[in-house]
Amino acid sequence: MYKKILIANRGEIALRVIRACKEMGIETVAVFSEGDRGSQYLELADQAFCIGGVKSNESYLKFDRIISAAEVGEAEAIHPGYGFLAENAEFNQVCRDSDFDFIGPTPEAMEMLGDKNRARDLARKADVPVVPGSAGLVTDTDQAVKDAKDIGYPILIKATAGGGGKGMRIAETEADLKHAIEQAAQEAEAAFGNAGVYLEKFIDKPRHIEVQVLADHHGNVVHLWERDCSTQRRHQKLIEESPSSTLPEDARAAICEAAVRMVKTANYHNAGTVEFIVDKDNNFYFIEVNARIQVEHPVSEMVTGIDLIQQQIRVAAGEKLAFTQDDIPCNGAAIECRINAENPDKNFMPSPGELKQIYIPGGLGVRWDSHVHQGYRVPPHYDSMIGKLIVHQPTREKAIACMVRALDELRIQGIHTTAGFLKDVLLTDAFADGTIDTKWVEREMLS
Amino acid sequence: MYKKILIANRGEIALRVIRACKEMGIETVAVFSEGDRGSQYLELADQAFCIGGVKSNESYLKFDRIISAAEVGEAEAIHPGYGFLAENAEFNQVCRDSDFDFIGPTPEAMEMLGDKNRARDLARKADVPVVPGSAGLVTDTDQAVKDAKDIGYPILIKATAGGGGKGMRIAETEADLKHAIEQAAQEAEAAFGNAGVYLEKFIDKPRHIEVQVLADHHGNVVHLWERDCSTQRRHQKLIEESPSSTLPEDARAAICEAAVRMVKTANYHNAGTVEFIVDKDNNFYFIEVNARIQVEHPVSEMVTGIDLIQQQIRVAAGEKLAFTQDDIPCNGAAIECRINAENPDKNFMPSPGELKQIYIPGGLGVRWDSHVHQGYRVPPHYDSMIGKLIVHQPTREKAIACMVRALDELRIQGIHTTAGFLKDVLLTDAFADGTIDTKWVEREMLS
Repeated sequence: MYKKILIANRGEIALRVIRACKEMGIETVAVFSEGDRGSQYLELADQAFCIGGVKSNESYLKFDRIISAAEVGEAEAIHPGYGFLAENAEFNQVCRDSDFDFIGPTPEAMEMLGDKNRARDLARKADVPVVPGSAGLVTDTDQAVKDAKDIGYPILIKATAGGGGKGMRIAETEADLKHAIEQAAQEAEAAFGNAGVYLEKFIDKPRHIEVQVLADHHGNVVHLWERDCSTQRRHQKLIEESPSSTLPEDARAAICEAAVRMVKTANYHNAGTVEFIVDKDNNFYFIEVNARIQVEHPVSEMVTGIDLIQQQIRVAAGEKLAFTQDDIPCNGAAIECRINAENPDKNFMPSPGELKQIYIPGGLGVRWDSHVHQGYRVPPHYDSMIGKLIVHQPTREKAIACMVRALDELRIQGIHTTAGFLKDVLLTDAFADGTIDTKWVEREMLS
Repeated sequence: MYKKILIANRGEIALRVIRACKEMGIETVAVFSEGDRGSQYLELADQAFCIGGVKSNESYLKFDRIISAAEVGEAEAIHPGYGFLAENAEFNQVCRDSDFDFIGPTPEAMEMLGDKNRARDLARKADVPVVPGSAGLVTDTDQAVKDAKDIGYPILIKATAGGGGKGMRIAETEADLKHAIEQAAQEAEAAFGNAGVYLEKFIDKPRHIEVQVLADHHGNVVHLWERDCSTQRRHQKLIEESPSSTLPEDARAAICEAAVRMVKTANYHNAGTVEFIVDKDNNFYFIEVNARIQVEHPVSEMVTGIDLIQQQIRVAAGEKLAFTQDDIPCNGAAIECRINAENPDKNFMPSPGELKQIYIPGGLGVRWDSHVHQGYRVPPHYDSMIGKLIVHQPTREKAIACMVRALDELRIQGIHTTAGFLKDVLLTDAFADGTIDTKWVEREMLS
């Protein structure tokens, strides 16, 4: 096992990895930008190095400075967290070239899965359903019109390099299609420097269901059941839960098995997430593989009792999984609320600043994953998430009641947060019934 | 189910009951002394009434003021927490006479179990082992020699009015006995004005193991497995865990069954704890029944997934237990550390004052039950416990690692706490091996 790991990230996930390492007896090297200097969570690492300016591209995205810190700190492996360089295959390769273990998949698997077209091809090879769509990128609009007819309207146009809703358009009819393709391509070119777009069947009111997987280097692949992350605003997940409250047992078994097939076919190692959209009839379609740990991994930890960060480290170090699929339970129900420093009354505008007072909820079934504390200054430069509130209870109904009570207890003064808004969502009939789709929040709460 | 409950307590356990009620949709009435005025946890109750001065006997022990608050607040039931009036059979009776449900056993059961002699008789009736001893007080030393022979050496001579180790002697052999009886009697006369002593088998290096039980008013009695609370200082529990790491499966089954027999024989209802001492050969002997919820109840909640406070309320309201013995799992391992505002370097002198800074641990497997927050003033008038840090992990080894990491994270400035001392205990070989007995801390850490 490693003696020392560098964490190439900040905030909540940096602390999460430090905690896992401490419990395993592994030392940690933290890195920080000028914007995070003095953050209290850095004291919990064995060493902490400043790697540059407040802007991410001057610090958390700088390959050479991170590698230097790992060299100086004598780390043996690098955990990328999520965001920043977590899915950057080039950084992954640089780690390899510098003789550091990257705690995640190989650069090859990461690169392949990062290309949506190649990932879709792989899904087909793995007999995993994909949303019906064009065979490749749109090169010829007349061919696109033919393809769209075969697929059936409404049609979704998506950027191959896309993410966060950019480079995405819906064409309701053939009349809309050409213009929508042009718009999507222009937006994709501007945002990602890649104008490539493809066509997909538009799924009405889809739910987002994803499967947590874990694969070692000895041929063992398991899933840790599914998460429902349908409660979103502008493609950003707000509330996540495990298990899904709506998926029938047969569909559940099928989606989990599909995720495992996908991972095996991709020759993927370490923790990953296979994301699907699910239609009203519980048909599921592959979207993408997230080749990293995800923000919402704690809900899977709660129901399975498995520490995913520790597993990531064990797998990277070459250990065999110490359990088989049959050993992985799904006990009770877990829900996570992302607490963001944003003002829901002002279109979720970021609300950085000092946490003048904070009262953190506790008690039975409540987990709080956060690097903040009273007096902490939320910097304006990074992601607005300041903490994750997670509950675990024997039933979903109890989990909702526990989360509502915990959100009531959470008091943060000095900045605005999304806590009250999320409580309003949790108290709706739609959430109770499990009928929330990925556009529900914008349609029903914000219009 | 009740619409409203009054909580006749303060601090951590008052908040614990408020949380349980909120998750059940039950309103709460809190009461507070002048010493607790302005405490933030009071805001989480639906109503809060001041019931008197800072001294307990001017507030939290005042029957009439608590009953008045329950009347004004229109509560239907009263939860006594632990300490204060929790095991006061007279208050229990006053609640009944005033038509409030007391959330606990009947006054009759409480009174009977509060009398150590009657409780021992009841244990014998229930075929539950008690420590072998003389039938009554020593009146004749020749008879005492005969009794001691039957009991077996070493013999413990105990003052009937005793407590805190006074009027207590150990006789290793018959040659020591008469002199030890004389010394104990003299010391007891001097300390308590009562020279009465009795004989008991001396248990060397005992462990303290207790069984959580739950009994409804429909004849159903279950246990929630055992807790090991051997890590004590001067009879005060410091660290508790579930399950016991040392009890073999047959002894474990026997002790749990004995606890259930005891509760059935006592016609006891609601949550309760049957306490035992256990010798090196895993023979167990009944000590007493705690007729209330205990400080250390969370470790049983973690391994069973059952909310004991909610169960107390359901049982008091007349509901049947919704589960049977076979439905109660014991998953993984849980440990609780009591964080006290005391200075371990000054003989655990209380250390009240303002929490100038507090950083609360979180993350996977960590539960924090506490009413305090940054800026809170620990009052000097009450119990010194300011919070309970509880961890739950798949194995005991992981639970210890998780607790050590959580104690490292817990930072409290402004007052002294026991957190560092408890960490030292957790890191000993004795704790790892499970060989700590009830006098170990004083013998090995403090002498």
